[in-house]
Amino acid sequence: MFSNDDLSSLRWNEREHRAEVIDQTLLPHVSVWLPLDALPDYCHAISSMQVRGAPLIGITAAFGVAQALADDPSDESLQHSQATLLATRPTAVNLRWALQQMADVVTALPPAQRAAAALQKAQALRADEIASCEQIGEQGLSLLRGCLNGGRLNVMTHCNAGWLAAVQWGTALAAIYKAHAAGLDVHVWVSETRPRNQGMNLTAWELQRAGVPCTVVVDNSCGPLLRNGEVDCVIVGSDRTAANGDVCNKVGTYLKALAAHANGVPFYVALPASTIDWSSACGDDIPIEERDPSEVLSIGGLDNANNVRHVSLAGAHTAAHNPAFDITPAELVTALVTEHGVFTASAEGLQKLRTLTGPA
Amino acid sequence: MFSNDDLSSLRWNEREHRAEVIDQTLLPHVSVWLPLDALPDYCHAISSMQVRGAPLIGITAAFGVAQALADDPSDESLQHSQATLLATRPTAVNLRWALQQMADVVTALPPAQRAAAALQKAQALRADEIASCEQIGEQGLSLLRGCLNGGRLNVMTHCNAGWLAAVQWGTALAAIYKAHAAGLDVHVWVSETRPRNQGMNLTAWELQRAGVPCTVVVDNSCGPLLRNGEVDCVIVGSDRTAANGDVCNKVGTYLKALAAHANGVPFYVALPASTIDWSSACGDDIPIEERDPSEVLSIGGLDNANNVRHVSLAGAHTAAHNPAFDITPAELVTALVTEHGVFTASAEGLQKLRTLTGPA
Repeated sequence: MFSNDDLSSLRWNEREHRAEVIDQTLLPHVSVWLPLDALPDYCHAISSMQVRGAPLIGITAAFGVAQALADDPSDESLQHSQATLLATRPTAVNLRWALQQMADVVTALPPAQRAAAALQKAQALRADEIASCEQIGEQGLSLLRGCLNGGRLNVMTHCNAGWLAAVQWGTALAAIYKAHAAGLDVHVWVSETRPRNQGMNLTAWELQRAGVPCTVVVDNSCGPLLRNGEVDCVIVGSDRTAANGDVCNKVGTYLKALAAHANGVPFYVALPASTIDWSSACGDDIPIEERDPSEVLSIGGLDNANNVRHVSLAGAHTAAHNPAFDITPAELVTALVTEHGVFTASAEGLQKLRTLTGPA
Repeated sequence: MFSNDDLSSLRWNEREHRAEVIDQTLLPHVSVWLPLDALPDYCHAISSMQVRGAPLIGITAAFGVAQALADDPSDESLQHSQATLLATRPTAVNLRWALQQMADVVTALPPAQRAAAALQKAQALRADEIASCEQIGEQGLSLLRGCLNGGRLNVMTHCNAGWLAAVQWGTALAAIYKAHAAGLDVHVWVSETRPRNQGMNLTAWELQRAGVPCTVVVDNSCGPLLRNGEVDCVIVGSDRTAANGDVCNKVGTYLKALAAHANGVPFYVALPASTIDWSSACGDDIPIEERDPSEVLSIGGLDNANNVRHVSLAGAHTAAHNPAFDITPAELVTALVTEHGVFTASAEGLQKLRTLTGPA
């Protein structure tokens, strides 16, 4: 499993000297590798959500800097690429982190050496990301084993925190892939994740490709599933985690956390340590991206002739509000699962992790 | 407001001697009055969900009997109309009740007098339904007044419990219409209500027609709205209420109730007393209808050429689970709002209502 690039969302094409990503806006109906030839392609891929998921956004941005420096290694080019990429998604904390990593490597170099160093660093970040996700998977597996109740293990997830979000393995889904690979009889409840349906479009698609049984439900149905004992644990990703353990993740995470807590179901959040925002004391310090109302009011799907077609769901002149993320208070989170181990969702828990890894 | 038939889902056309209903399967994209000329039209309107909502189904069936008897007042015609209408939605309690009301009035009459008596009874049932909903609205208004905080009153609702479901006024929305008519600055958060989107398709549409400001959100966004203090109260309808006050309503109600409770926001349930199921001791005694997975996996909308078109949302071979309702435990319900007054959601509260109204 994951021994090659088959189950990966970003690859480097050496011959064409460009990154290629799966265009996630076309999934699950069409699966194509999208070539990213120049900085605007990388920016567009991130802002239009052809790539999404905190780890993948960071890696894509890193390759974007490398590409920009290959085209023009000047200070201006470096600064321009950093600023343009940073502006694509305001909530993505490891976008900023990845750009900083790139800047640290290339800034002091003479321009002529920057392109090669930047590409090497982007590839190293990609490899680190994959290794880190696999570690998260191992840590998560031990938690999933603890949820076994003698029968099939039913795990609920939200949005997409799999290899489509994180180059390979994923974060939340890494634990599920590890469980599946270890021979556990695992089944996944996939919440569709309105408005953009990343659960139905991406998570179900990648689980199917990896041979893991799954069932899609509308977000509303997660309530009765949790209340009726049909879920052994919930595991989701995190876009950004505050220093006190509050989790900022795809809108809909909070309602699932409330229902898990009310019904005594463990609620795990899997994240690379790079997505912890030490500068946010609590979740409410994190700004929430308000996205276009059209994401609520219209949707794409496959018509009878197998063409992807967008249809308008709402009546004319309907107003919509579309926050992309919500905050799940730390007290609703059973544990944070990172590549460095499992920690309680609290300032103390995260301080332990920080001690382990050194200051960011 | 509601002084004429403009904001109504079923009207009697005296000149053409027929009922006319809004075809709700076409909303919000197309609004047409559908003439029901003969018994098969009434049956089709109910079975195909051109009319839906327990109260409206009952009233439509009553007019169907009246129409059948106008065409043929014989015993055979009466029995045939009763049997055919009952078969359209065999589990709808109000349908059975309305047909019984009609039979009670006409069975003993000589055939020549049946048509007039049946039409009079159908019109009386319609008027009673409207009066009962208006009473629920008055009771609800006093609760909404109690939620005023000096600014705009933000009310959240789920699914459709308005005049499209109940001839006029509605149940949950009746309180909002009363507040609007009383000059309160009321704004409604409409949750889209996946999978069938009754919130976006029906509630937003009917609120717009009544001039009540509203904003549609995906069901997931109701969590952060409630957590962020952007909701002064939630008011929803109920499909069936157990004797202990547990509420069976459209799936998604439970998650909203949990979030309202966690954030100290009042959660009201509006219902006609006729929907209380005294034979169900608690919510978990109520069987939950599992509907077709295609409701989750595909959706209808308006394409660029303004044609309603169905598109497939999920990838091929995707499994889905689709419970239509969920149970909200009584302890999450702040109060039950009925035409007889406001009661606590508990066995004691409902016993008070029962004492007031006599045994069912």
